[in-house]
Amino acid sequence: MTLAPALPPEFTLIARHFRPLAGQGGLDLSDDAALITPPPGRELVLSADAMVAGVHFLPDDPPDTIGRKLLRANLSDLAAMGADPLAYLMTVALPRGLPDSWLEGFVAGLADDQAEFGLAVLGGDTVSTPGPISLSLTILGTVAPGQALRRSGARPGDEIWVSGTIGDGALGLRAARGDIADPDGYLVGRYRLPQPRLALGRALRGVASACMDVSDGLVQDLGHLARASGCGAVLQAGLVPLSPQAAGADLAVLLTGGDDYELLFAAAPGAVPASMAATRIGHFTDSPPGVLVLDKAGQPMALSRQGWSHF
Amino acid sequence: MTLAPALPPEFTLIARHFRPLAGQGGLDLSDDAALITPPPGRELVLSADAMVAGVHFLPDDPPDTIGRKLLRANLSDLAAMGADPLAYLMTVALPRGLPDSWLEGFVAGLADDQAEFGLAVLGGDTVSTPGPISLSLTILGTVAPGQALRRSGARPGDEIWVSGTIGDGALGLRAARGDIADPDGYLVGRYRLPQPRLALGRALRGVASACMDVSDGLVQDLGHLARASGCGAVLQAGLVPLSPQAAGADLAVLLTGGDDYELLFAAAPGAVPASMAATRIGHFTDSPPGVLVLDKAGQPMALSRQGWSHF
Repeated sequence: MTLAPALPPEFTLIARHFRPLAGQGGLDLSDDAALITPPPGRELVLSADAMVAGVHFLPDDPPDTIGRKLLRANLSDLAAMGADPLAYLMTVALPRGLPDSWLEGFVAGLADDQAEFGLAVLGGDTVSTPGPISLSLTILGTVAPGQALRRSGARPGDEIWVSGTIGDGALGLRAARGDIADPDGYLVGRYRLPQPRLALGRALRGVASACMDVSDGLVQDLGHLARASGCGAVLQAGLVPLSPQAAGADLAVLLTGGDDYELLFAAAPGAVPASMAATRIGHFTDSPPGVLVLDKAGQPMALSRQGWSHF
Repeated sequence: MTLAPALPPEFTLIARHFRPLAGQGGLDLSDDAALITPPPGRELVLSADAMVAGVHFLPDDPPDTIGRKLLRANLSDLAAMGADPLAYLMTVALPRGLPDSWLEGFVAGLADDQAEFGLAVLGGDTVSTPGPISLSLTILGTVAPGQALRRSGARPGDEIWVSGTIGDGALGLRAARGDIADPDGYLVGRYRLPQPRLALGRALRGVASACMDVSDGLVQDLGHLARASGCGAVLQAGLVPLSPQAAGADLAVLLTGGDDYELLFAAAPGAVPASMAATRIGHFTDSPPGVLVLDKAGQPMALSRQGWSHF
């Protein structure tokens, strides 16, 4: 009796859902590992993020947005380094009995983003969990040697800049929970599908003296940049760019909420071209590392917290 | 009021526990991503695995063995490709209130294995979960171009070989649960701390026509090798190497249990040097892909399952 080559559920699932996403080097997700030739003359940029249902996304978020949000959070890390996306690996821990339609939506969203951002999956793992859906993604990017943007290069006198608008993601979470109105769906969209600022990251090579992405609250993340650079930071709250949808909200919430996925960077005065899609919001000083937040009247603002922790 | 650079719990935890593990290129785990120069003239080998408490390890397994088991499972994937370890990234989702001693043990185990296997962590993420401990690890290795071992190269007439002994991991799980005796702790040790066969993987470059690691049961994994290579496989159960501790156990359990982390490979007759730490257990045929298991009398064995699924 020759045993038929029947496949256990995880292999069927991988073959059906994930194999179509596999990029060159992924070996159809059917070998022990992926195999790629790194682009010659480039440095590799690597980052990993995890997301857990009920902690990082809402269990009833549309499945097509969930994988994309994780991928985009990682792409945002590449943008912060000024890197170009190359590929990713992903592990998914799924509760038994998750409907097939959930996985179909999850994979369809990833397929859309792979096409949009020009990368593909190289490998991963699919396991079951008695707990909530848990996802982990490792991204690979590349950058020309010595061109990566770091957090540590800001100097006293450098200006502080940020892309896009701040606070929409934090309001979007409240809107997705039904706590606030969101008539045009803009805020929920910003919460569920952040926009990694890859083009800006590329444009900042040789322009920014330091850079990071804002994911855990502007004030807290600015503190990271200040600490890594050994500078003080003065944030002028009145300069922080807000969307029309966020304009009436509590400024403290906007400045300390998570899920912005905008780029926060330092640059010498005059270094940022007028055409660049970014807003100056303060400057670095020779004070000890820390963040001084000034309101529109130039008075220090009291904030009950600096940012968001997922732990 | 300048906001003090206080760190939320996840950053304190990363700084305290994980930063000492960071390798060159990890940027002290304090930037948005890691930055490495890939070894010139080498291909990159990448694999990712996830483990969930209660599914892949027992919740009361010693914490120092848990991270090591995940790392070693990934190292075993590199061994199966004939690759050399380079670095890894890891994400951990932890229940709130996990004692600090658990993390100390977890990290101490990883530190031991980093030293033993010559690699370091490049990055990762630490998040909380309302569910069980969930870990995900992405490993990077390198191999000379064209030298990677694949699953697809076995040809009819090739011999089937396996390293070490088979079935100890499956018995070790039963022993760890208290279901069977394990007077010298050997079986539990094999379950908790597999030995990635990196030296053998290196030695198999140019020798094996196909290779994979056995992690989900010998029969099932041989089926993968047969399918990838388009061959039939005849497994002679009486030739399968067993430890003294496993010698009296049900052969069907040993042949289909998980957690072996041995190398299973194909080689042309005469290609395997007598000095190689491996045992010939069968051969490939021109039958359609599938596995024929023969008992010591040469009669087909009936097996109620082929292997282990973690889904």
